[in-house]
Formats: sequence, C-alpha cells, structure tokens
Amino acid sequence: MDATLSAPPTAQVQIALGERSYPIAIGAGLFDQPETYAAVPKAAAALIVTNTLLAPLYVQRLQRALAGRFRAVHTVVLPDGEAYKTWETLNLVFDALLSRGCDRKTVLFALGGGVVGDITGFAAASYMRGVPFVQVPTTLLAQVDSSVGGKTAINHPLGKNMVGAFYQPQLVVCDLDLLKTLPARELSAGLAEVIKYGPIADAAFLGWIEANVDALRAGDPAALAHAVRRSCEIKADVVGQDEREGGLRAILNFGHTFGHAIEAGMGYGAWLHGEGVGCGMVMAARLSQRLGLIDDAAVLRLTRLIERAGLPTVGPVLDAGDNAGRYLELMRVDKKAEAGEIKFVLIDGIGRAVVRGAPDALVREVIDASCA
Amino acid sequence: MDATLSAPPTAQVQIALGERSYPIAIGAGLFDQPETYAAVPKAAAALIVTNTLLAPLYVQRLQRALAGRFRAVHTVVLPDGEAYKTWETLNLVFDALLSRGCDRKTVLFALGGGVVGDITGFAAASYMRGVPFVQVPTTLLAQVDSSVGGKTAINHPLGKNMVGAFYQPQLVVCDLDLLKTLPARELSAGLAEVIKYGPIADAAFLGWIEANVDALRAGDPAALAHAVRRSCEIKADVVGQDEREGGLRAILNFGHTFGHAIEAGMGYGAWLHGEGVGCGMVMAARLSQRLGLIDDAAVLRLTRLIERAGLPTVGPVLDAGDNAGRYLELMRVDKKAEAGEIKFVLIDGIGRAVVRGAPDALVREVIDASCA
Repeated sequence: MDATLSAPPTAQVQIALGERSYPIAIGAGLFDQPETYAAVPKAAAALIVTNTLLAPLYVQRLQRALAGRFRAVHTVVLPDGEAYKTWETLNLVFDALLSRGCDRKTVLFALGGGVVGDITGFAAASYMRGVPFVQVPTTLLAQVDSSVGGKTAINHPLGKNMVGAFYQPQLVVCDLDLLKTLPARELSAGLAEVIKYGPIADAAFLGWIEANVDALRAGDPAALAHAVRRSCEIKADVVGQDEREGGLRAILNFGHTFGHAIEAGMGYGAWLHGEGVGCGMVMAARLSQRLGLIDDAAVLRLTRLIERAGLPTVGPVLDAGDNAGRYLELMRVDKKAEAGEIKFVLIDGIGRAVVRGAPDALVREVIDASCA
Repeated sequence: MDATLSAPPTAQVQIALGERSYPIAIGAGLFDQPETYAAVPKAAAALIVTNTLLAPLYVQRLQRALAGRFRAVHTVVLPDGEAYKTWETLNLVFDALLSRGCDRKTVLFALGGGVVGDITGFAAASYMRGVPFVQVPTTLLAQVDSSVGGKTAINHPLGKNMVGAFYQPQLVVCDLDLLKTLPARELSAGLAEVIKYGPIADAAFLGWIEANVDALRAGDPAALAHAVRRSCEIKADVVGQDEREGGLRAILNFGHTFGHAIEAGMGYGAWLHGEGVGCGMVMAARLSQRLGLIDDAAVLRLTRLIERAGLPTVGPVLDAGDNAGRYLELMRVDKKAEAGEIKFVLIDGIGRAVVRGAPDALVREVIDASCA
C-alpha cells in the first residue's frame, strides 16, 4: 500500500461539469451526519428511496440527519434486485411523490446500490421534468461507478438500461461504513468496476489493486478508501470530458458489452452486474489479444486478478445450439452499437482503451473459447 | 389584417438556446419536401410516430420525403387522444425502436398533435438516454404551443404531464396545409393557445386576433400563417430566456392551472386541452380582476373573444357537494405549486402576466361564479 492510504478521513472528488458540477464525499461515518448535506437545496419535502433490505438498517438514521433541512422526510421502499429495475418499480416512486403532494423542489435521496440509484435518478430526472437528487450509494459497485456521472435508467425486456436520462445529482456521499454490511458476493461484484479502471486508464492503479485485492475483499477500510477515491477520480476525469458519451466516456464500459449480454441472457438478477462485467472483461481482453492489441500475458494477468477478486471468468452457455450467435444477437442491442455494428471497448496496452468494431468470426472464436 | 400577412410563404423563427438552438419552419407544403429536413442529422434509421387518424393521411408522404436521408424509415401508430398519453403508449415507441434494432443515432419524427408530440419527445429524451427528434405538428395547438420549447411528458393518474423531460427537438415543421383537415373543434382548441399570447405578452396581437378570429376559424391561410408565426415568436422569446421554467416561462401556463383541473376532473380526453385552457383563462382573468389587477371590462373582453373562438367559457361542475374544493384539490398538484400553495398565472393589465398565490376564499368565489 502507498502513502495515499493515510489521506484524511474525508476526501472530496469534484465532478466538473459547469453549472452541473458536484462533489463526491468519500469517508467513514458521513451518511447520518446533518452537515454532510449542508449544501443540498432546502425544500418542504425530501423522499428517501431505498429497498426492503436496506430500509431496516439505515432509513431512520438518514431521516434523522435530514430532519433539520426538510419539514417532511418521506420514504418509499422498493423491492430489491436488478429484476425490479423496471417501469413498475419506477412508478412506485412517482406514486409516492404524487400521493404526498411533493412539489418540484422536493429532493430525492437514493439510499441503495446501483438499482436504487438508477431508478431514483431517472425518477428525479422525470418527475415534473426534473427535481434535485442525492446519491447515497451503499454498495462498492455504486460508490465506484454507478452513482457517479449521472447515468440513470431502467431496463426494458429487450435490453438493459435502454430507457433513461443523463441527469446529474447534487451530491454523492460514499460512506465507507455502509460497506461493512455488504455481503462478500456484492463486494466482489464491486471490485469488477474497480479493476476496470486499471486496464482502461491507469496501469499503476492496476498494480496497486493486484497488491491489495485480498485486503479489499477483507473489507480493509484504508484499502477501500483508496480504491473508491482513485476510481472516482478516474471516472470524474472521463465524465468531465464527455458527459453524454459522445466518445471517450464509452471506455468506462470495458467488459460491459459482453457482460450485458450475460445479464440479459441469463435473466436480470441471475448474475450480478459486476459478475457479468468481470467475466465480460476476460472476453474483451481476449478479443483485444486476438486483434493484436495486447499479448497473452496481459490477458492472463487480468484473468487472474478477476478470479482473485472472487468473480467468474468463464461465461455461461446462453444457447446450447448457437451460443456465440445468441451472444451476438444480445450484443447488437448494446447502446454503443451503430447501424447493427457492435462497438467493443478494447485494451490497447494496459492503461489505454479503444472503441472499435470486430469481425463476427473473431468474436465467435472468443465466445467459444470463453464459455462452458 | 396587417402587412405581415403578405410575408414570404416560408417563415423561420429561431429558438435560441445555445447549442440546443433550432429553427421552426412555418409555411405551406413543407412537411413532404425532402429539403425541409436538409439539416437533420443523417442516420441508418428514422421512426415516424403518429396516430391511427393521421397515419392513413400523411405517413406515406413523410416516408417518401425522408427516404433519401435514412436507409430505413419505420413507423409506429399510437391510439389517438389525451387518454392515451400514458406509459403504456410510450412503451409502444420503445418496443418499436428496440424490436427494429434502432441505435442511438436514430431520428424520431413526431407526426401529430400535442399527444403524439409529447410522447415522442419524451421517448426521444429517454431512449438510450437521448436520441434526436423532429416535431411535425398537425394541429394548430401543437404548431403554436406544444411542439415548441422542449416540454415533453406523459400523464399520471394523479396529475397531467407529471412525468417528462425538458428536451429540445432538432427542428419544428409547422406546415399550414396540415391544418386543412383539422376538425373545427380542434381548430378552436388551438385558438385558445393563440389567444393566450395576447394577454400575457402582446396587447397588439390580442387586438389582431379579435379582428381576425372569424378568418382563423374559417381556416384562412394568411391569417393562420400570421397567428402561428407571432405565437411562435412570443414563445421563442420566453423559452430563450427561461428554458427550464425557473421563473418567466410559467406565464405560458395562463389558464392552464384551472384548465388542467378541468381536464383531470372530467377524465383525460373528455375536454380537449385547449378547451380547458380557454375556460381556464376566463377563470384566471376573473381571479386577476378580484385581486385588482385588471378591470371588469378586460375580463369581459377576454371572455367574449374566447367565446367567439368557439371555446367554453363556463366551467364544469366536478363535484356537486364541494365543487370549489374539488378544483382546489386538483390544482394543488399543479407543477407550479410550492409547499401546497397554488401559484396562478394572472393578468396585470393586458399584455403583462404575473405569477402569484391567491387566498383560497377568493379562488372559491371565482370557481363558484364560473361553473354551471
């Protein structure tokens, strides 16, 4: 571990997007302190959106922290899991807002993982055409990736995250204490998104993760603090250059094209998003190798780290008849696809990503070699 | 009629919103000419969104006009009417896009009135977090108001336009020829939004409408051309100053607070939106008078014009027990309401609008005096 681990307990990473700029506060013991929310706009009402698992653990503490800023702090509790990232669940948030007479100054608080954050963000983007919201991510995956950068969405039966908005929060609160109750499987899923930042942007960070992956899996606070901060810094840098994914931002989807196909093909929720991404990164690395961008050793290095993080490295067979064909079919609805051509995020030497197409035959080879 | 009526056949009004700026083309014979769409981004696919009534009349002509710019021009036909401005209908657009493998460069074309425009705009705002779209409004109401300015939405059972986005089109094409098939009732509904611009912003325009209301109802092309252009100019001016309704833009909702209550209270579709607004303007004028902002003569003048436009000036009884109470209840979910206080758009002398609250007792008096 390096010197950055003795950084002060609360770090701040800024997302620089002009008038849509906002801070990410990273530290322990933040989410239930009133001063954490000192810069959030005051309003008559707040609505905490959370899920059935988290509500009994954390809602009262957040309510108390917000009581001084809002006359009423309402709560809506959603079912837990990716299978519920649907219009029906989103509508529970609108029902809660309208039945309580919430006006367009109401502030929404997303207290949960990626699903709660994505639904709450899209609800905030759409309710009365836009109300402010705050992300309080409770999973590692949400702290290092999904709560940062303003991507919000729900799933459609024909594709993941197909309906949504770019809509930035007022504030992201990454409280490392919230990770203490996180199941090991969820922690590993979050590590997939941490690992991602190495190959696409920062070879030194990849080395640091390799040296610290056991500490991270054990929940070491200093290791987690560094992983969250460095991940958010890289994401902030990319998003600040390309908020709406006109180009560069697509590199953050390393592993996601294959991963989304696995998630959709297995049925949302069977594989965790991070598990799909972990396995998807192995496939994307193999495709990069076959295109001559990296060597075998780099593929092996990434595969080994993903395995050590507790993530799957072998893809599921989605169709016994034509497995590669099924993967290709699912990947063609990827949002990066253009005129039917799938765009892959590939590694062009560790620390550098490129986005490009690849011949179907080569993609089939990679899938055949990666699934069992 | 004045000299502006001999303006060249195609006028252009610019909505100035920085990088989100776009033109409104106003003229006869525009919508089926390929050159009308010369500045629209090229893409593999376009999707025309229209309704059951309009599809047989206009879809083929629009398809032919777009055939040179898009490899595939798909169509989705929605049910007609405000009662269908729902999530279920919106989802038909997403289904069409996904089942045809439409990517995020796909351009949506809204060929229809306010309902088609609002749904298509929200679909464009949300599909893959945003694709380009073009408004081709086929009603007077949509040409002078709803297609311009980027407000998109669907209704929720508890309130009109409660779920949506501010999302600007690439282009608005107001083809006056499309108004030739418009039923008289729809033309009158559109006149409500034309009339609105007089009292809130332009006393001279109000005088012009009074002098030309019969020609407008008769479908006189020159009169309609002027009405559409002047309405769009005023709207462009207001939207250019306040895109997201932080303040000024709310004045465009003159008559809408009462009108939305009528629409919701009667069940969406029973009254046309413009009919609700027409009647709502009478109520808002009366409230302005009771607050000492305008005199009786001004109320009478507006009421007479609204009547001459073929619009209702007497409100429906929504609840035989406590009618005013029911109106108030419905108006409290208005998007302009803050912390339970309804904000009314009122007339402070013809040509000038203000937004403010009013005592419930006074509002009740106005409703009691306005309904039968």
